[in-house]
Amino acid sequence: MSTPAESSCEFESLVGDLSLRAREAQRSLALVSSGERAAALRLAATALRRQSAQILEANQQDVSAGRARGLSEALLDRLALDGARLTAIADAVDAVAGLPDPVGETIDQTERPNGLHLARVRIPIGVIGIIYESRPNVTADAAALCVRSGNAAILRGGSEAVHSNRAIHAAFVEGLATGGVSPDVVQLIPTQDRAAVGAMLGASGQIDMIVPRGGKSLVSRVQDEARVPVLAHLDGICHTYIDAQASPDMAVALATNAKMRRTGICGAMETLLIDAGFGAARQVLGALLDAGCEVRGDGRATALDPRITPASGEDWDTEYLAPVLSVAIVDGIEPALDHIARHSSGHTDAIVTEAQDVADAFLAQVDSAIVMHNASSQFADGGEFGLGAEIGIATGRLHARGPVALEGLTTYKWIVRGTGQARP
Amino acid sequence: MSTPAESSCEFESLVGDLSLRAREAQRSLALVSSGERAAALRLAATALRRQSAQILEANQQDVSAGRARGLSEALLDRLALDGARLTAIADAVDAVAGLPDPVGETIDQTERPNGLHLARVRIPIGVIGIIYESRPNVTADAAALCVRSGNAAILRGGSEAVHSNRAIHAAFVEGLATGGVSPDVVQLIPTQDRAAVGAMLGASGQIDMIVPRGGKSLVSRVQDEARVPVLAHLDGICHTYIDAQASPDMAVALATNAKMRRTGICGAMETLLIDAGFGAARQVLGALLDAGCEVRGDGRATALDPRITPASGEDWDTEYLAPVLSVAIVDGIEPALDHIARHSSGHTDAIVTEAQDVADAFLAQVDSAIVMHNASSQFADGGEFGLGAEIGIATGRLHARGPVALEGLTTYKWIVRGTGQARP
Repeated sequence: MSTPAESSCEFESLVGDLSLRAREAQRSLALVSSGERAAALRLAATALRRQSAQILEANQQDVSAGRARGLSEALLDRLALDGARLTAIADAVDAVAGLPDPVGETIDQTERPNGLHLARVRIPIGVIGIIYESRPNVTADAAALCVRSGNAAILRGGSEAVHSNRAIHAAFVEGLATGGVSPDVVQLIPTQDRAAVGAMLGASGQIDMIVPRGGKSLVSRVQDEARVPVLAHLDGICHTYIDAQASPDMAVALATNAKMRRTGICGAMETLLIDAGFGAARQVLGALLDAGCEVRGDGRATALDPRITPASGEDWDTEYLAPVLSVAIVDGIEPALDHIARHSSGHTDAIVTEAQDVADAFLAQVDSAIVMHNASSQFADGGEFGLGAEIGIATGRLHARGPVALEGLTTYKWIVRGTGQARP
Repeated sequence: MSTPAESSCEFESLVGDLSLRAREAQRSLALVSSGERAAALRLAATALRRQSAQILEANQQDVSAGRARGLSEALLDRLALDGARLTAIADAVDAVAGLPDPVGETIDQTERPNGLHLARVRIPIGVIGIIYESRPNVTADAAALCVRSGNAAILRGGSEAVHSNRAIHAAFVEGLATGGVSPDVVQLIPTQDRAAVGAMLGASGQIDMIVPRGGKSLVSRVQDEARVPVLAHLDGICHTYIDAQASPDMAVALATNAKMRRTGICGAMETLLIDAGFGAARQVLGALLDAGCEVRGDGRATALDPRITPASGEDWDTEYLAPVLSVAIVDGIEPALDHIARHSSGHTDAIVTEAQDVADAFLAQVDSAIVMHNASSQFADGGEFGLGAEIGIATGRLHARGPVALEGLTTYKWIVRGTGQARP
């Protein structure tokens, strides 16, 4: 039986090998034209459809095993595939194939006084590691986004979906290969050992960026341990602030949509701040309670409706992902900004008001990836932003913020063209 | 005597306090207009000039102490200030004050079919930590770039320059304060204890980005230990490849300039690759040798001139920062690309050729931050690129690559303006 050190070396070695293959495959991918990459993706989509029986059978294996292990219905639902879901997965790959290719775009260019021509040109990041849980569709989604942007992907999926992921991956790369793209462009880590994740996180210089897709404990572990840069999607503790000068009807509509449209997504409102001067607070809170939302409030909020229970200190820092809401009554924009500065996770925060100057102050001073005026925070989504697909919503400050799509999977290089200039 | 754990807590606490003050100062800086920020910088430059006697006296203290401790002449030269150098430092702050402000720039915008108006707008990164060695001018340079881009800076300078840094910092923030900008916008860590550096590197969420400016061991330590994102300037193992179809005169001029103009800068050529089919290799190597460069070559290179000594395996991975050069003769672009892929640090690599197709292949396939055709790698510099000033040359892949100036000290947020849209 190997010691921890031996095991760790073994996984570092495994990840090293995969990374090397990924790097070489990515370099050869760069020599394939954009049109050929898109065509290969379409063949991957076709392969997914053609091999649906095998994929669904593998998925059935995972679902049965999961049920036997006592997974919750919610988790089983995230895991399970049927014909319609698999078609949607294949369609999504086709959709990504149809997106404009960011690689090769000239971001800016200039000619210097000495005649040097400078251009900044978009290039793939290189080798991207995706570490994810539960949802088998991520296998295809992430692979498609990486290939579309000229990157190689190393995938490490959740254990519950191990057979589904293998079947999806096998079909996908078979399709790529028929299109002339090396199957090493998308590799699946062939072990579910946790140490392999640690090896990925430490693979500086071999893996260029890690994208964790999953629950808070996965993302936290990745953030804590990773030496490789991480594109992290952290908590979505989203706020909506209803200003005194908000339209009552708009406030009701936006508050209920922001909380209740889908409570489990990252853009769902978790804390509602209401200006004490807003005259229709009872109406807004009543609408939420009538829609089945549990409301926890500060002292002034609990006085507005007997169904509102007192909030604890922790409630202001809780992402419920459920029909539960924290509410505080504040005296104007300053305390609202202060509350948001202290409790927001920096994802999406919104203001409802008819006063443009108040809106402008909010938009200028709230330091989140997405700030909104008179719109529902549920719009925090790559598709809604017109970016096509989305690999996640980044809440870090560098490289990319908010919905991260193809552009976020690229970096750039400077191309300098001269005619023999030497520097004086 | 405190235990290491106690000391470490003490420094974490110190850095925590400074970061909190920096964060608040940065928030109030955001409320100051761009013009007022520029004016405050000009007052900082004025204060540097006005307090030159104190600064030079403090510097004299550092130089004397350094000489007594046996610092080399080269290091003493990097440390020493005189009237002219101090004037140049103040002038550089004025120059940064005159640069266009990146903050508030709309990167792109769009109107969605549902009427939502989306814009990506540039904002400061927030709190930037700069850890540097030797050169006291970095105190003023980095502070100016941060303030110009709306950031707060926490500086930790080298021990050799401790008095110089304090005097420069004191003058700088005094100038800022007369311009209505909080002196906490630029703070100097008040201790040279190494544990304070460790505390900065671990200050996730408190410091938003770290910029290490110094030698390889500093940058490596920062890269290894940092939990905070790092904008690293790594080795400058820069290559120039002379293709068979290069103009002999241009090849001589560029090779000598790229190596010998200033051997100690990151853009200096460290390895020269010459196509076996290039007819003037002896001429190029002779010019370098005549200029005083020591040349170490592979088997075919050593045959070209008796002054060329055999290169060891390590030479290909060495950044000499001195008049020493490694040379290899290669059979065409493929082995040149292969050598560069294996040995380049990804900083700047150049090709000399009259063949456009060969140049295009090189520019497309070399994966460095800066790739050049028919120009000297010594041009790898923010000023030469027209960016104004430069906080460093980033060789990582994310956020910024190549010369990093004001834009690299910014990130963005999405501003969404609606008229009450709820998501279906």
